[in-house]
Amino acid sequence: MKYLHTMVRVRDIDASLDFYCNKLGLKEIKRKENEKGRFTLIFLGADNSDDRYALLELTYNWDSEEYTGGRNFGHLAYSVENIYEVCERLIKNGVTINRPPRDGHMAFVKSPDGISIEILQEGESLPLQEPWRSMENSGSW
Amino acid sequence: MKYLHTMVRVRDIDASLDFYCNKLGLKEIKRKENEKGRFTLIFLGADNSDDRYALLELTYNWDSEEYTGGRNFGHLAYSVENIYEVCERLIKNGVTINRPPRDGHMAFVKSPDGISIEILQEGESLPLQEPWRSMENSGSW
Repeated sequence: MKYLHTMVRVRDIDASLDFYCNKLGLKEIKRKENEKGRFTLIFLGADNSDDRYALLELTYNWDSEEYTGGRNFGHLAYSVENIYEVCERLIKNGVTINRPPRDGHMAFVKSPDGISIEILQEGESLPLQEPWRSMENSGSW
Repeated sequence: MKYLHTMVRVRDIDASLDFYCNKLGLKEIKRKENEKGRFTLIFLGADNSDDRYALLELTYNWDSEEYTGGRNFGHLAYSVENIYEVCERLIKNGVTINRPPRDGHMAFVKSPDGISIEILQEGESLPLQEPWRSMENSGSW
């Protein structure tokens, strides 16, 4: 048995790839267009991912609907080499940090479709540092 | 960057472990109880999983609420060695196969909290076989 992927639905491919790849740092591994089913699947991996590792599958239905969130699904979690650098890049690119990494360890943001994403510092937490230490929460995650 | 886990919320630990472990075939890798936050986290992996691979995190809040689903989250996907054997075990244990593996390749079930789970045959699809070939869909997934 093997964990293959987690699928989330997206309303806008460009906005989603901008968020997941340009801002968050994932990369596109493979893409499938299905003319008959009128959908596009895009598989994203973290750095150095290959088929041994679970991927994130974005499903874009060509006949789009509004996608609401639910409480049964929580979040996706990724570790990063430097949580402050990732959060700085996200902020510079207009992403709200819902839960800033005040503790040098954990942050939360949301995708354009409201998927919560947890960002965790690899290994030991980073030393506490402004402006993160004083940054307040924003919204939910 | 590394994909660590996907978190889903569960209302009932026993029912959830029965579903995810006894019926689906995942195994518990680690567990954290948080008295102060009044929650329990249980991390589940597929066979042979270790910390290199993404895990499924179950969050059980001791002060439980009803968990509804949303359309932005799609499903979790696992591959298995024999999709017919897994589906047979699920049915024998009272799990509805929402999308039976008519094609010897793909099936869908739902967790007790309404999380859709895709089961995919490893490698080539199995030969078509009754009772699967004639089994009808049931509900949504």
